[in-house]
Amino acid sequence: MPTLYHFPLCPHSRFIRLILNEYNISVELIEERVNDRRSAFLALDPGGRTPVFIDDDGSVVPGATTIAEYIDETYGSSYASRRLLPQEKPMRIETRRLIDWFNIKFFDEVTGWLVKEKIYKRYSAQSGPPDMDLVRIARANIRPHMQYIGYLISMRSWLAGDRLTYADFAAAAQLSCADYMGDAPWDENEATKHWYQRIKSRPAFRSLLADRATGMGPAPIYTEMDF
Amino acid sequence: MPTLYHFPLCPHSRFIRLILNEYNISVELIEERVNDRRSAFLALDPGGRTPVFIDDDGSVVPGATTIAEYIDETYGSSYASRRLLPQEKPMRIETRRLIDWFNIKFFDEVTGWLVKEKIYKRYSAQSGPPDMDLVRIARANIRPHMQYIGYLISMRSWLAGDRLTYADFAAAAQLSCADYMGDAPWDENEATKHWYQRIKSRPAFRSLLADRATGMGPAPIYTEMDF
Repeated sequence: MPTLYHFPLCPHSRFIRLILNEYNISVELIEERVNDRRSAFLALDPGGRTPVFIDDDGSVVPGATTIAEYIDETYGSSYASRRLLPQEKPMRIETRRLIDWFNIKFFDEVTGWLVKEKIYKRYSAQSGPPDMDLVRIARANIRPHMQYIGYLISMRSWLAGDRLTYADFAAAAQLSCADYMGDAPWDENEATKHWYQRIKSRPAFRSLLADRATGMGPAPIYTEMDF
Repeated sequence: MPTLYHFPLCPHSRFIRLILNEYNISVELIEERVNDRRSAFLALDPGGRTPVFIDDDGSVVPGATTIAEYIDETYGSSYASRRLLPQEKPMRIETRRLIDWFNIKFFDEVTGWLVKEKIYKRYSAQSGPPDMDLVRIARANIRPHMQYIGYLISMRSWLAGDRLTYADFAAAAQLSCADYMGDAPWDENEATKHWYQRIKSRPAFRSLLADRATGMGPAPIYTEMDF
C-alpha cells in the first residue's frame, strides 16, 4: 500500500488526499509535523514540506503539484472519463492554472497565514500566540477568492469546465482548512457555497471531515452538509 | 509565431525563455509590467503574473509551471534525447521537485524580495526606496541554496540527473536575476559556480545576458563567462 506523509490541516496534503479518495487508492496516512524537521522526513523531501507520497515501487514523490502529476501519469489512464487531469488541451491548461491559483496564490494570501498562526503555533512552545493582525489580513484576502470561485462556477458546471477536475479539489482543499477554523465566509457568494456543498457531499470528502487538530476543534458548521 | 508576455528580470519568465531558446522555438517577446495591472493582460491571466505564453493556435497558457508542462506536451516529443522533461519516472519526479524548489521556494526566500525591492519599486512612484533589511535577508537566504546546488551537482552531471533538464533552467533563471543585481555569492560554493558557468555559456542563455532593467545596469560580472 502506498504511504502519504501529511498533516491534517495542511491544505496541500488535503488536495492529494481528496484525489486519492476520489480514485479509491488506499494509502497509509502518516501524520508529519514539519516544524519538527525530522531528519528521516528531510531525507524524503529536503524541502521539508507535506505532503510526500511513497508509491509501492518505492518512488518518493514530494510536493502537491508533483504528486498530482505523478498520480495522473501512473494511475490516471484507468479512470477514463473520470480522469481528474483532463486530456483536452484547453481544459488541461485551465486545470493546471487553477491548481497553481489555489496551491500557491490562495495559500500565500489566505491559508498559509491561517494555518501557521492558528494551528502550527500550538505545536511550538517558543512561537507565542497567533498574530491576529495576520489572521485578519487572511480573512480579508479570502473574500475576493470566494467571488472568483463564484464567477467561474457561474459559467461552468465545475471550476475548470464541465467535469470535475483536480482544480475543484485544489480549491476545496484550501477552503476546507479555512472552514475548519471558521474563517470561510459562506455569505460572500451563493454560487461558491453551492459548489462547495456539492464537493463536500462526495464520499471522497468524508475522511477530511473526521480530521481534528490537537487543541482546536472544528467550527460548528465544518461537518454540516447544509450550512 | 507564439507570443511570450514576460518581464526581463522576472525569474519565472526567464525560466520559460531559456526553455524556448534551448528548443529553438522563436517567440515574440512582449514586456509586461505586472504592477500596471493592465486589463488586457488580466484577461489573459486573472492572476496578473508573468509569464504568459500564447501559442499559434490561440491557446493562452499562464504561469511558468503550466507553460513548461504545456511546451513539453506540445513540442517535447520532437526533441528525443534532448527533451528537457525526462520520460523516466525517477528523473521526471526529481525534475518536477526541483522546478518547484526554485520557482517557489527559492523565489519566496530570495528572488521575490530582490526583484520587488530593487527592480519593481523603480517603476512605481508611490512605493518608496528599497527596504534594505529585506534585501539583506534575501542575501542571507541565498547562501544555503548555493550550497544545495553544489551538493546536487557533486553527485550528478546536471541538477536532476545525468542530462540537462528543466531543473537546470529553473535554477539558472532564479540565480541569473540575483547575479544581475550583484547578489549571487559565487564564492559560496565552487561546484555551483562551475555548473552555472556551463549553463551561462549555452547559446540559450545569450538573450538573457542582453537584458537591461530601466535605471539599473547589471553587475559587472553579469555578462562575463569567467567570473
